[in-house]
Amino acid sequence: MTIGTNDTTAPMAQALLAWRSLLGDAAVRDDATTLTHYAASTAASGTRPAAVVWPHSLEQVIGVVRIAALHEVPIYPISTGKNWGYGDACAVGAGQVIVELSKMNRIMSVDPELAYAVIEPGVTQQQLSQHLRDNDYPLWMDCTGAGPDTSLLGNILERGFGHSPYGNRLQHVAGMQIVLASGEVLETGFGHYPQAKAHYLFPYGIGPFLDGIFTQSNFGIVTRVGFWLMPKAACLNHFICKIGRHDTIAPVVDALRRLRLDGSLRSIVHIGNDLRLLSGSMVFPRARAGALAALPDALRAQLRRESGLGAWTVSGALYGSVRQVAAARHALRAALRGLDVDTVILSDVKLKAGALMARMLGDSALGRSLRAKVALGEALFALNRGIPNGRFLAGAYWRRRTGLPADFPIHANPAADRCGLLWVSPVLPLRGADLLQLHALTEPIFRSHGFDMFVTFSMINERALGGVMTLAFDKDDPDEVARALSCYRALFACVMTHGYIPYRVGIGSMGDLDPEHDTYWRTVALLKAALDPLGIIAPGRYQPGTPIAASRQETG
Amino acid sequence: MTIGTNDTTAPMAQALLAWRSLLGDAAVRDDATTLTHYAASTAASGTRPAAVVWPHSLEQVIGVVRIAALHEVPIYPISTGKNWGYGDACAVGAGQVIVELSKMNRIMSVDPELAYAVIEPGVTQQQLSQHLRDNDYPLWMDCTGAGPDTSLLGNILERGFGHSPYGNRLQHVAGMQIVLASGEVLETGFGHYPQAKAHYLFPYGIGPFLDGIFTQSNFGIVTRVGFWLMPKAACLNHFICKIGRHDTIAPVVDALRRLRLDGSLRSIVHIGNDLRLLSGSMVFPRARAGALAALPDALRAQLRRESGLGAWTVSGALYGSVRQVAAARHALRAALRGLDVDTVILSDVKLKAGALMARMLGDSALGRSLRAKVALGEALFALNRGIPNGRFLAGAYWRRRTGLPADFPIHANPAADRCGLLWVSPVLPLRGADLLQLHALTEPIFRSHGFDMFVTFSMINERALGGVMTLAFDKDDPDEVARALSCYRALFACVMTHGYIPYRVGIGSMGDLDPEHDTYWRTVALLKAALDPLGIIAPGRYQPGTPIAASRQETG
Repeated sequence: MTIGTNDTTAPMAQALLAWRSLLGDAAVRDDATTLTHYAASTAASGTRPAAVVWPHSLEQVIGVVRIAALHEVPIYPISTGKNWGYGDACAVGAGQVIVELSKMNRIMSVDPELAYAVIEPGVTQQQLSQHLRDNDYPLWMDCTGAGPDTSLLGNILERGFGHSPYGNRLQHVAGMQIVLASGEVLETGFGHYPQAKAHYLFPYGIGPFLDGIFTQSNFGIVTRVGFWLMPKAACLNHFICKIGRHDTIAPVVDALRRLRLDGSLRSIVHIGNDLRLLSGSMVFPRARAGALAALPDALRAQLRRESGLGAWTVSGALYGSVRQVAAARHALRAALRGLDVDTVILSDVKLKAGALMARMLGDSALGRSLRAKVALGEALFALNRGIPNGRFLAGAYWRRRTGLPADFPIHANPAADRCGLLWVSPVLPLRGADLLQLHALTEPIFRSHGFDMFVTFSMINERALGGVMTLAFDKDDPDEVARALSCYRALFACVMTHGYIPYRVGIGSMGDLDPEHDTYWRTVALLKAALDPLGIIAPGRYQPGTPIAASRQETG
Repeated sequence: MTIGTNDTTAPMAQALLAWRSLLGDAAVRDDATTLTHYAASTAASGTRPAAVVWPHSLEQVIGVVRIAALHEVPIYPISTGKNWGYGDACAVGAGQVIVELSKMNRIMSVDPELAYAVIEPGVTQQQLSQHLRDNDYPLWMDCTGAGPDTSLLGNILERGFGHSPYGNRLQHVAGMQIVLASGEVLETGFGHYPQAKAHYLFPYGIGPFLDGIFTQSNFGIVTRVGFWLMPKAACLNHFICKIGRHDTIAPVVDALRRLRLDGSLRSIVHIGNDLRLLSGSMVFPRARAGALAALPDALRAQLRRESGLGAWTVSGALYGSVRQVAAARHALRAALRGLDVDTVILSDVKLKAGALMARMLGDSALGRSLRAKVALGEALFALNRGIPNGRFLAGAYWRRRTGLPADFPIHANPAADRCGLLWVSPVLPLRGADLLQLHALTEPIFRSHGFDMFVTFSMINERALGGVMTLAFDKDDPDEVARALSCYRALFACVMTHGYIPYRVGIGSMGDLDPEHDTYWRTVALLKAALDPLGIIAPGRYQPGTPIAASRQETG
C-alpha cells in the first residue's frame, strides 16, 4: 500500500506537521527542489530524503528528536552537509529526514588563555578562522583542505584530520553536548557537573570516557563541543620535498617516521603523488588526452615535467620558537641527507621575496610559473595558520567536463556541480614498504578501470599513514560512472582483503564493513539498541548488517 | 537464611567448583588467609572477597566469565591489585570474586621500528622496562611513580598518568582485547579485522571508537593492549625549580602553561609542595612532633630549611635532540626570568660530577646531603627513561608507626604494610589562580582535621592540572582513622562543590559521583545493561546509584 504525503494519518505527515508547528514552515521543507538539492552527491547516485528540517537551537533539536521518536520517523543529522566524496549531505538510506544543523552556528566562547573555543555544529572553518582574526585572538585553529564552508564539528565526528600539530582532531576536543534519541541532553567529560571548572579542558571526565562512541556512529546528535586552539607560533616554516622516482619515496617515509616519533615533526605531514598535485592546478586535459579517462603515460610524464613535479611531494609545517624551528629544520635536513629528495624550506621572508621577483618578471612564462608557486606557498602558509582555502578541493573537478566553476573556489560545491568523486581511505603502518605495497596493489585497479590514481598519504599519527585515494569521474558519462563504481568496489575489496582498513568510508560502503559478523559490530549494535531502541537516528550510519528503515511510508 | 560455602547447591559454591575444575585448585582460593590478604587496604577498611581466582590465559578468562554468568556470581577483575590509595586489590562491594590477572603477564611482542609493545594485564612496569633493556631495544616506556610492581594496563584503564611525553597514557595505546560479560572477545580499533595491518598503530579503527568506555568502567575485562613506546631520546635533561613562597607559584604555573601550549614542554610537569617532597625521604618525625598527627608550623619550616626545599618544587623532563633540548632550556629560562624561582637543569654530566663530588666529600654532612640529592636525581632520570622506582611511594608510609620497611622500596605493599592512605585527585584549569584557590579551599580542611596536606599538581595535558592530595594516617590509631575518613569526606565534598571534579576516585567514593542523577550516569547505566545485563562484572565500579550486589549467597 502506498500512502501519499497528503495522507495526514501517515507517521511522516504527522511528523512534518509537528515539526512545522515547532520550527515554522520555512524550516521544514519537502518540496521537490529542496529534496533534489539534498539528494545531489559526488557518488554515482545520492539518496533522496523525505524532508529537510533546520533547527536553530538545542531546544529545537530536542523537539525534532522527540517528534521523530513519537512518530518513529528516521532522522539523519548533518552539520553543514559538505562531506564531499563520503556521502555529501545524503543519508545512508532514502526517505529519511535530514536534520541540518547549519543554523546552529554560534561560537559560544573563545578562551585566549587556555586556548579553546566552544562551537556548535554549524560553525564553519571560515567562520571560526575569521572570528579569531577579527577579534585579534593570539590563536590559530587546525584547518583541513576540505574548504572554508565545511563544518568543524562534522569533520571532528568523522575523525577527519588537518594539517597542524592539532591535526589529529579528536585528540583536541573536550566536552561534547549530545542530544540522545530519548530527547535527553548528555554532557560528556566533566560537563554533566554544572559547576565543573575543567569542562572543556580535560576530555576524560570521571567514569567511562564516552566521546569516542559518538564519532563515526549514529548514537546521538552532537550539538556542541570544546575545540582546542593553538597559540600562534612565533615561527612557522613549511617544507616541501620533491622525490624524483616512485620507489625512492620509501626511505623518505622511514626517515620522516623517525622525526615524527622523536617529536621533531609535530604536525601532520602529507605525501601526494604527481597527479594529486597536478589536479590542484588543472582539470583533466581532454584536448591533449583525447577520449581516454586516464592520462597516457607520456602525457603524464610531460605534465609532470611542465609543472616541475617529482613522482611524490612531501609537505609539512614546522611550528615553534625560532630556535625550535631551527632545530627541526636541522633534524629534517640531516634525516634526508643522501636520499633522492630535493627539499625547499619556505618562510614568510622567502615567500615575500618570491612574490616580489614574480612581479618583476611580469607576464613572462617564468613570472607566471613563479607566481603560481608563490600562490600555492601562500595558501599553504595560510592553511597552517588556520585560514582555510578551497583550492585544495580542485581535485574533485578533475573529470568535470566544464572544468572549474568561474567563481571557484568560492563556496565550491562538488555535489551540486556534478563532480564525480569517491574516496578510498586505507590506514597503513607508517613505513615506506607499506606505502609501496598498497600502491602496487591499488594502482593496477585504477589502471584496469581506465582511471588515474590520485593519492595522498598523511602521517595521521606517529605510527600510521592515512591514505586518501581519489577516484574522480565524469558524472555525465554513464559508462564512466559504471566503471567508477566497479573500480571503487574493487579498491574497497582490495584494501579490506589486504588489511589496509579505511579510517572512514562513504555511505555506500557502510553496509560492507562487517563481512564476518564480528563481535565488534555486534557490540556496536548492542550499544545502539541501548541508546536508540527505535533506531530513529541515522539508521545505517556506520551500522552494517542493519536493514535501513526509511520512513514507515516507504516500508509500510 | 545463611548458606555456608559447603552447601554445594549455592551459586557461589557451584561457581567455585566449576572454576576449580577449569583452573585447577591452586588457582582458586577462598581460604581465610587469602581473603584477609585481599581485603587489606590503605583505606579505613577494605572489602572482603568471596574468593580469588587466577586465570592464566584468554581462554581461562572467558571460562571464568561464563561460569560467573551461569551462576550469576559477581566477579571483580584486577590486574595486579596495586591500586594503592584508590581501593588497592579490593572490589567495590564485599563478597565478590576477585579475578586476578597477574598470571597473564606476557609481553606478546615489541616492535622497535613502530615503537610499541603488546602486553597483557599482568605485565608490570619493572617487567617491561627490564625486557626492553635486556633486549637492547632503542625504546623507553612511560613510567609512573607508583612503583615497579604495578600493572601497566591497570594504570591505563584507570587513566593514570606518567612522567614523559607519553604520560597521557590513554592517548598512547591502540587495540584493546576485551572479554565481555557474554564471554565474547571484543577487539577494538582495527583488531576485529584479523588481517588488519594497523591493529596497534591507529586506535580509532572504523566505526564508533570504543576504547574509552572500557576505562574507569565495569563493561568488560581488558586482556591485552598495544602500548606505545618512545624512541630513546638523544638528549635528556631534567629541570627542578624551587619556588620560595607559597603564592609565587601562581605566575610560575602560568609561565609553564604557555610552554606546554607552545610545545616547548612535551612531558608531564609535576608540582609538589614541601611536604610531598619531604615525605619522599622521611616519615613523620614523631620524636620531634610529639602526639600530633600534623607537623607544627615551626617544625615544618625547620624541616623545609634542613632539606633546602622551597614552598613548591616543579619538576619536569626535556626530551629530544641536543638542539631541541637546548631550545627548550632556553624557552624555560626565558619564561621564568624575573619570577621567584631557582631553576636547576640536570644532565647526565652534572649528575656524574655530583656523584664524584659526593664521594670525595665522604661521610660529612655535606657529602650525605649531596649524595641524597644525586640519588634523587638519578631516580628521576631513570624514571624519565622508563625505569620505575618504588621510592616515590614512600609518602604512603608517612604516618606508619614503624616507618619504612627494612627492604623498602623492594616490592613495597602499602596495603599489607598497614599504611593509611587516601587520595583526592581534583582536576583544575592549568592556571596559577586555580591552584591557589583549590589550595585555599582544601588546606584548612586538612588542618582542621589535624592532618598535613601533601599535594602534587601535574600538567596532565596542556590545559589542565591533575591534583593529587595525599591523606596519610595511622591505621593503628582508631581515632586518627575516624578523623581521616571525616577529612576525606569533607575534601571530596569540597572539590565536588567547587567544580574541581576528580579525574579518578577510590572505591569508597564511586557511589557518590552522581548526586543529581544526571543523564551522563543514566547513559552509563544503559550501556552497562546492554553489555552486562546480569551485572556480573565489577558491580559498583564507577557505577553510582546501583546497589552493589554481592554474591547471591549474601543477598539471597
